[in-house]
Amino acid sequence: MRTLISLFLLVVTAAAQPVTIAHRGASGYVPEHTREAKVMAHAMGAEFIEQDVVLSKDDVPVVLHDIHLDTTSDVATRFPDRKRADGRYYALDFTLAELRQLSMHERMDHKKGTQAYPKRFPASTGGFRIVTLDEELELIAGLNQSTGRVAGIYPEIKQPAWHRKEGHDISPIVLRVLAKHGYTSKKHACYLQCFEHDEVKRLRGELGWKGRLIMLMGGGKTGVGGSNFDHMRTDANNSPGGRTSWA
Amino acid sequence: MRTLISLFLLVVTAAAQPVTIAHRGASGYVPEHTREAKVMAHAMGAEFIEQDVVLSKDDVPVVLHDIHLDTTSDVATRFPDRKRADGRYYALDFTLAELRQLSMHERMDHKKGTQAYPKRFPASTGGFRIVTLDEELELIAGLNQSTGRVAGIYPEIKQPAWHRKEGHDISPIVLRVLAKHGYTSKKHACYLQCFEHDEVKRLRGELGWKGRLIMLMGGGKTGVGGSNFDHMRTDANNSPGGRTSWA
Repeated sequence: MRTLISLFLLVVTAAAQPVTIAHRGASGYVPEHTREAKVMAHAMGAEFIEQDVVLSKDDVPVVLHDIHLDTTSDVATRFPDRKRADGRYYALDFTLAELRQLSMHERMDHKKGTQAYPKRFPASTGGFRIVTLDEELELIAGLNQSTGRVAGIYPEIKQPAWHRKEGHDISPIVLRVLAKHGYTSKKHACYLQCFEHDEVKRLRGELGWKGRLIMLMGGGKTGVGGSNFDHMRTDANNSPGGRTSWA
Repeated sequence: MRTLISLFLLVVTAAAQPVTIAHRGASGYVPEHTREAKVMAHAMGAEFIEQDVVLSKDDVPVVLHDIHLDTTSDVATRFPDRKRADGRYYALDFTLAELRQLSMHERMDHKKGTQAYPKRFPASTGGFRIVTLDEELELIAGLNQSTGRVAGIYPEIKQPAWHRKEGHDISPIVLRVLAKHGYTSKKHACYLQCFEHDEVKRLRGELGWKGRLIMLMGGGKTGVGGSNFDHMRTDANNSPGGRTSWA
């Protein structure tokens, strides 16, 4: 289980107890964000299973890390005419019915023409499919029932400012799917996350999300959506119950 | 993990050490013989993962426990006109392209209208698909690579006499897929199994299978293919290294 460390992130609760979160599912062993990756994460005992969420052209939330499709699917060979001027293929340009035709695979580094993580699952193996957020939450609910062990969910709304610029409002759509599956309050095993400060405020304010909410930060000064991460940084050594307690 | 016992069979090796075999995959937790069931079995540490194999109309070996489709898929609603006179739907009457349109689900007891095993994965959850033997062996090979732990395979040729009566010879086709994935000798982690005595003899003789071979026995006097199980029974108490050593 050599990639276990790369697979699971540790977060700190109020009591400084670590929580295991399967990042994109058991993505060290099977292609990220596939059904297989989520089932394996559940079997490995993950307490939370993460979903990155983007929209399809027909406004269906699907579980994908990138707004692009080309590093984790065969989109370039299946729909060669559908790339944008920048040479990339965007999930938002495809209906769900089209996305379902794609074969998903291990993440590729197209510049090098090799797998991004060569020791992981072989990228040449097909048979993996895209998953909607609705389907994934149903799958996790089924596993929670059949195993008798509840794994929570950890959905991230991807690039809401970019989605809005493209004419799609992702957050209310994601909240409706969460509500359909019973995730509506802080009592439920769900952490909703986003890298964009304005959207995090909007989720709690205008959109009325009452569940747990995470403001994600990157290592840089500003995020994709314009968030100023420098303003948010805490000095770990002066933070009560912060990094120093789980180093 | 309450259904672990029902999930795994124990077999006895020459040294009477138990071997864990995931029967139809981790079928206690996710619908039997789906990709998800096989991935979960691998994650749970199964040493061998079982495949029941039947043919499609176009002679593609697919992984299904029954020659019928109606207890584990939505075939009756998707192809209502395709049942035989006995009211059952047979995998052998559908091409692979048609079988791929089916949604697989937890095993149903259609007489009662309920799940055969009510505490298992909810049968109302869709999104599961049929798997070819070729795809499943590729999936297991990928998991063997990514986890660094080799799980073997345990394919069963289902009802070869019935297949032949219907004009299809299943065994040579299965052997070709096994050979494609490198399973050809007793050194390889593969046990090929069958309930039909004549076919077991044919596999070793006429068809030249050099790998490990299991003659399966049921609890009754004779098997579906006419095998006389009574002639094969061993008195456990007089059997060296037999049942008494692992009761």
